[in-house]
Amino acid sequence: MSSRRDFVKIVGASALASALPTSSAIADSPFSKITRTYHLAIAGYTFLIYNNNIDKVIEVLKAVDIKYISLKDFQLPYNSDKQQAEVIIGKFKAAGIQVYGLGVIYLKTEKDVDNAFNYAQLAGVNTIIASPVYEVLSYMEKKAKEYNIKVAIHNHGPEDKLFPDIDTIYDKIKNMDARIGICLDIGHSFRCGHDPAAMLLKYKDRIYDMHLKDVDAPVEKGNSLIMGRGKIDIVSFVKALDKSGYSGMCSLEYEQKGDPAIGVAECAGFFRGVLKST
Amino acid sequence: MSSRRDFVKIVGASALASALPTSSAIADSPFSKITRTYHLAIAGYTFLIYNNNIDKVIEVLKAVDIKYISLKDFQLPYNSDKQQAEVIIGKFKAAGIQVYGLGVIYLKTEKDVDNAFNYAQLAGVNTIIASPVYEVLSYMEKKAKEYNIKVAIHNHGPEDKLFPDIDTIYDKIKNMDARIGICLDIGHSFRCGHDPAAMLLKYKDRIYDMHLKDVDAPVEKGNSLIMGRGKIDIVSFVKALDKSGYSGMCSLEYEQKGDPAIGVAECAGFFRGVLKST
Repeated sequence: MSSRRDFVKIVGASALASALPTSSAIADSPFSKITRTYHLAIAGYTFLIYNNNIDKVIEVLKAVDIKYISLKDFQLPYNSDKQQAEVIIGKFKAAGIQVYGLGVIYLKTEKDVDNAFNYAQLAGVNTIIASPVYEVLSYMEKKAKEYNIKVAIHNHGPEDKLFPDIDTIYDKIKNMDARIGICLDIGHSFRCGHDPAAMLLKYKDRIYDMHLKDVDAPVEKGNSLIMGRGKIDIVSFVKALDKSGYSGMCSLEYEQKGDPAIGVAECAGFFRGVLKST
Repeated sequence: MSSRRDFVKIVGASALASALPTSSAIADSPFSKITRTYHLAIAGYTFLIYNNNIDKVIEVLKAVDIKYISLKDFQLPYNSDKQQAEVIIGKFKAAGIQVYGLGVIYLKTEKDVDNAFNYAQLAGVNTIIASPVYEVLSYMEKKAKEYNIKVAIHNHGPEDKLFPDIDTIYDKIKNMDARIGICLDIGHSFRCGHDPAAMLLKYKDRIYDMHLKDVDAPVEKGNSLIMGRGKIDIVSFVKALDKSGYSGMCSLEYEQKGDPAIGVAECAGFFRGVLKST
């Protein structure tokens, strides 16, 4: 198994870096005691009700000053051709926003895996956030090496029989190529009764993406909330982020009904407030 | 001069407390190390572009979970009669929001002072946020005692020749009745080149309201920004709040162009993030 450091070299950090926006709200804090290597981002699922209205998504991201996004298929359809992908991703780029990943993509067959890697290659991103069945894991690993594209497997909480929390993901991938990793969803982890900060520190070497939110109770039926209004200890999670050396995206995922704009803004503000204080 | 503790008794803390919403987002933090006595609130000026659309203001306050507001005259007109005031304030009350003050009200003549106290009494609030000329200060003090209503004089920054920062307010009121106090606007204080946290600690006994914001530079021409994006050290300000024993309102004031909803949400989130971390 390659180390994570080697892996970053394989994927081509310099090529990716050249596509990054020039400033980071996190790193630029005038008061923070440390320089951070991770970025506030957003999961495209947040904007479900905007459907394929990319202009509306960009309007909100500009208002809240978030510069990184992963897209769902309703934003960048799976059957897009190269030109269609360039138009959509180009809109974000023109607004100073980087499309850093795609997903969550459900992978039930080898054909799904083929499609997902073609889709990611066509979009020019280096990370797929995926929800695979066990049967395709080996084929997925082979494709990840072939395309040199990372896969971050996403945990979906207690009701997910395959990957409820990231410990079950790690068990399945620990001997695989380092391109196969984890997308830590802290809400679903919390609903499993786990401490997301502890999960981050335990599996940090294989965490390649995150979905951040809050939840009202550490139980299966826990409800997703605006960050800061629930029971997840975000302060402790940020301390774990700093300790972990994580250098990827911290994607807010807003899952409540109605227009997400105002809720996303409060989440972004809350996360920045904790960062500034920690 | 009465002590501040005596003053609270005079104004009738128990009567006020009975009108308060039953929960406080600040005090209810499951992670904060201290119990806070101050409240996140909002200055009505924030919603200038909504003009007299009270329903729109309430919609935003409910979305961001802010339960206290001071009103401007475009929300509660100066010439309102008792019934009109009850309709407007009743709308807020029905939504679980307390109208805690009125202002900023400009007081240039004794007639203005008379009108302001009648207006506050009719609205049933116990605080006027005011911008008086020196000539009416003594008359204002007399009326404050007569009506048993507080006046929080507001600092307006370097270009204000009367009260640029709160030190100039304190100099004028220090020997007055304790009902005459200060509304600390941290943005205008910062534009005076002062540290708002230090100003708070120095004049804490006479600060009865606050306008919170961020500013991009500690100069007269500094621009108001979403909290957390500027140069005011909000973390240090919150530490000063905790140290001061302040038990009033911390009113966000959003002064940028366009719809304030999304910016207010980020400000509220940021302030809560700092509170949760501190």
